[in-house]
Amino acid sequence: MAAPQFSRQLSSSSHVLTPDTINHQVKQAEYAVRGEIVLRAMQHQTALKANKNHSLPFDEVIMCNIGNPQILGQKPLTFFRQVAALCEYPALLDHDKLMPEDARARARQLLAATVGGTGAYSASSGIPLILEDVAKFITDRDGHKSDPADIFLTDGASVAVQRMLRLVIRDHNDGILIPIPQYPLYSATIDMYGGAKVGYLLNEEAGWGLEIKELERSLQEAQKKGITTRALVVINPGNPTGSILQRKNMEEVIEFCHKNRLILMADEVYQDNIYYQDQPFISFKKVLREMGDKYSNFELASFHSVSKGFFGECGKRGGYMELVGMHPEVKSEVYKLASVSLCPNVIGQIIVDVMVNPPKQGDASYEQYISERDEIIASLKRRAALITDAFNKMEGVSCVPAAGAMYAFPKITLPQKAVDAARAAKREPDFFYCLALLDNAGVCVVPGSGFGQKEGTYHFRTTFLPPENKIQSVVDRMAVFHAKFMDQYR
Amino acid sequence: MAAPQFSRQLSSSSHVLTPDTINHQVKQAEYAVRGEIVLRAMQHQTALKANKNHSLPFDEVIMCNIGNPQILGQKPLTFFRQVAALCEYPALLDHDKLMPEDARARARQLLAATVGGTGAYSASSGIPLILEDVAKFITDRDGHKSDPADIFLTDGASVAVQRMLRLVIRDHNDGILIPIPQYPLYSATIDMYGGAKVGYLLNEEAGWGLEIKELERSLQEAQKKGITTRALVVINPGNPTGSILQRKNMEEVIEFCHKNRLILMADEVYQDNIYYQDQPFISFKKVLREMGDKYSNFELASFHSVSKGFFGECGKRGGYMELVGMHPEVKSEVYKLASVSLCPNVIGQIIVDVMVNPPKQGDASYEQYISERDEIIASLKRRAALITDAFNKMEGVSCVPAAGAMYAFPKITLPQKAVDAARAAKREPDFFYCLALLDNAGVCVVPGSGFGQKEGTYHFRTTFLPPENKIQSVVDRMAVFHAKFMDQYR
Repeated sequence: MAAPQFSRQLSSSSHVLTPDTINHQVKQAEYAVRGEIVLRAMQHQTALKANKNHSLPFDEVIMCNIGNPQILGQKPLTFFRQVAALCEYPALLDHDKLMPEDARARARQLLAATVGGTGAYSASSGIPLILEDVAKFITDRDGHKSDPADIFLTDGASVAVQRMLRLVIRDHNDGILIPIPQYPLYSATIDMYGGAKVGYLLNEEAGWGLEIKELERSLQEAQKKGITTRALVVINPGNPTGSILQRKNMEEVIEFCHKNRLILMADEVYQDNIYYQDQPFISFKKVLREMGDKYSNFELASFHSVSKGFFGECGKRGGYMELVGMHPEVKSEVYKLASVSLCPNVIGQIIVDVMVNPPKQGDASYEQYISERDEIIASLKRRAALITDAFNKMEGVSCVPAAGAMYAFPKITLPQKAVDAARAAKREPDFFYCLALLDNAGVCVVPGSGFGQKEGTYHFRTTFLPPENKIQSVVDRMAVFHAKFMDQYR
Repeated sequence: MAAPQFSRQLSSSSHVLTPDTINHQVKQAEYAVRGEIVLRAMQHQTALKANKNHSLPFDEVIMCNIGNPQILGQKPLTFFRQVAALCEYPALLDHDKLMPEDARARARQLLAATVGGTGAYSASSGIPLILEDVAKFITDRDGHKSDPADIFLTDGASVAVQRMLRLVIRDHNDGILIPIPQYPLYSATIDMYGGAKVGYLLNEEAGWGLEIKELERSLQEAQKKGITTRALVVINPGNPTGSILQRKNMEEVIEFCHKNRLILMADEVYQDNIYYQDQPFISFKKVLREMGDKYSNFELASFHSVSKGFFGECGKRGGYMELVGMHPEVKSEVYKLASVSLCPNVIGQIIVDVMVNPPKQGDASYEQYISERDEIIASLKRRAALITDAFNKMEGVSCVPAAGAMYAFPKITLPQKAVDAARAAKREPDFFYCLALLDNAGVCVVPGSGFGQKEGTYHFRTTFLPPENKIQSVVDRMAVFHAKFMDQYR
């Protein structure tokens, strides 16, 4: 990964720490969502800002590399921010008419439960009241009991995922089954922790289907290499695929893990990004509980976040994991890992609270909350359809419609000449394509190779987050670029 | 570490993840600041809350285990929270008289610099304006230029320390020089990352002096074991010792690192907790720059945090590190590590901004800021002296006066009978003492063994953070307990 902002004036020979003498597992890890193309996009942004007479063929860079809704203009939910502001500066509670009654009541309740307020370290696993609210949310969502002692609040879901992987991975013989394509947090973390990535291909032709025979194949292949596979990662709704698992499929996944003694790590951070009634989100916890006593000791870690959904509070770094069926001493170790970092940030915890316990019917903020929510979800649905349709009209491009999440992951069939040109430039062909898209159309997307893809296929991931008044022009810019690119290399 | 809140109803045999099958480096790591005694203190708190007719010999547990000022009643600085609340809910900017003009101006400036506001992921290393403000703060503090490209904002200093250790430690042959006693973040992280702790004893008789001959001794001993020592950790002002390094000593430390090709990791999070004019804080960066060109490529990582000082905004999880003299590709790797976790929480970043750029003379909030600051520092100084004096009056206790930080680290000479009783109970003697102090006096402190101490000596760490109206009674409770304990085991 290049980070061109760091000057290279120093000679490397005199350094204690050099690229050759740092931890090689860190060096090996890749995180394309903020990799070289993104840094180049930021350079373009700087150039555009600095010089109105620039030579770039666009006036604005559109960042479609990351699920970061508010940076593209999505408004925060009013209730969330009112509660946050009141907790930050409780003197505002004295002003009767500044904030709605329910926001003030919630802030009072949270402050009463948070000794020392937002400025104090909380308990390592989070503020007890918020743990209870999360457990109640899960209980209501699934119709099955959740225990606050199973909940661990974290600075975003990424930290939670990393804590679990840290416990699971002992050495390079420990494998983690991850989907291909996957969100690169998983591959990067497994590399950093020195474990083995055991990839299973999602079936693009079946709408990015998760197939048990592919899990079996991958598991056996790993076994032959001497790898002990210890956990299975499932991202549902899918990132980058946007697909949603059906109950029967989820039962098969649980059965597969049970049979093969695997921990199930369920990344469910897009559970509120659901666009079609006939493709609902069902949690793995719910499916597990409804499969009966045989699975009562099943070990499941599920992850949620305030960064996604219709709230998109990425900058808050709030999230949680629920650990069910885990050995109590394993939970103690998770608690210890949390303790070394002291606690998740308190405002992030408070945003988790309002996410899992939003205004209820009859509350002063209810109507506004519902209207903000519905508007964002409806708009995301329109944008998802718009971008998918546009891709499917482009030459050599096909795109599975996104039923959930924030991403489309189109497949691009590149002309051989383009592949050759990429190889000549020592680039992956999809990277070469995405770089050209950025440099010519000012749209920043992430090459499929950053997520993993079936050999010989090329993809990229784009969010469908540009606002409604811009997304058509973004799509148009992509289409014009694509047609030219195909002509150039035909 | 026990975590009694996790029930043990499940049999361990059926689990995939058990204490025996998790990553053993994690299991090995210890973090006493939130360890068994603290969990027991929390149990006492729960018992006191649940039952007014409890059988405990105290009515309140005083948590002196952790530097967490606001949980013990320290008020947040008004300006800090006004800016935070305005950034969370910018509609408040429309109310003319709600907040002082400078708080509103700062919030407007920060919001203008933060695309997407507090709800968006920022750049991985932090919001550019805040990086600039940090660099300006360091430049003004030291009289030597700091470059914003050298600054990395993080979720508290702990994360920054861990990122550096992750890069430095490759395997169990890589050693890190850490003080004894030290803050257990270091020992726990080195254990988790599979490196070697290379301890150097601070000289208690010389006021916890850092002596170069001891660094030499420790380094050579490690060398004999085949360990390549790669970095030296210095905590200044000291945690848990409260001592402050003098310039000459710091020059020797830099010279020692230079000679032995060590990265210097300077934990300077207590730089604002300075209680005596004749013992000022000087940064390692300043000393380094004033040692001349010979050291121009010296590799220094220094750490700062919003959690300490007179602001004590622990719950915000804000901090930064400055990396000077580092190889540009090493900085790229730090950037990548930050990217995998996306970004530090934005409110924490904003609190870093107000910490490094507080109200200036002439600003609307200046008088209030200064008065809040001075009051807190003066009070901490009084409490530090009070607690140290009290310790030095107790039988068999001696305590180096704290010139900085938030802690006292008294040495307790335990009667042999107490040592024998501890051994019989399979406890470290200092742990045994601290447990008895908690159970009998309701004061929660951390045994010296959690920080490291010279063999055959016993200590504990206590904060001096209980508020002024309570600290005398806390000290009295400790004194009464101590006298009884000594009598019992004499």
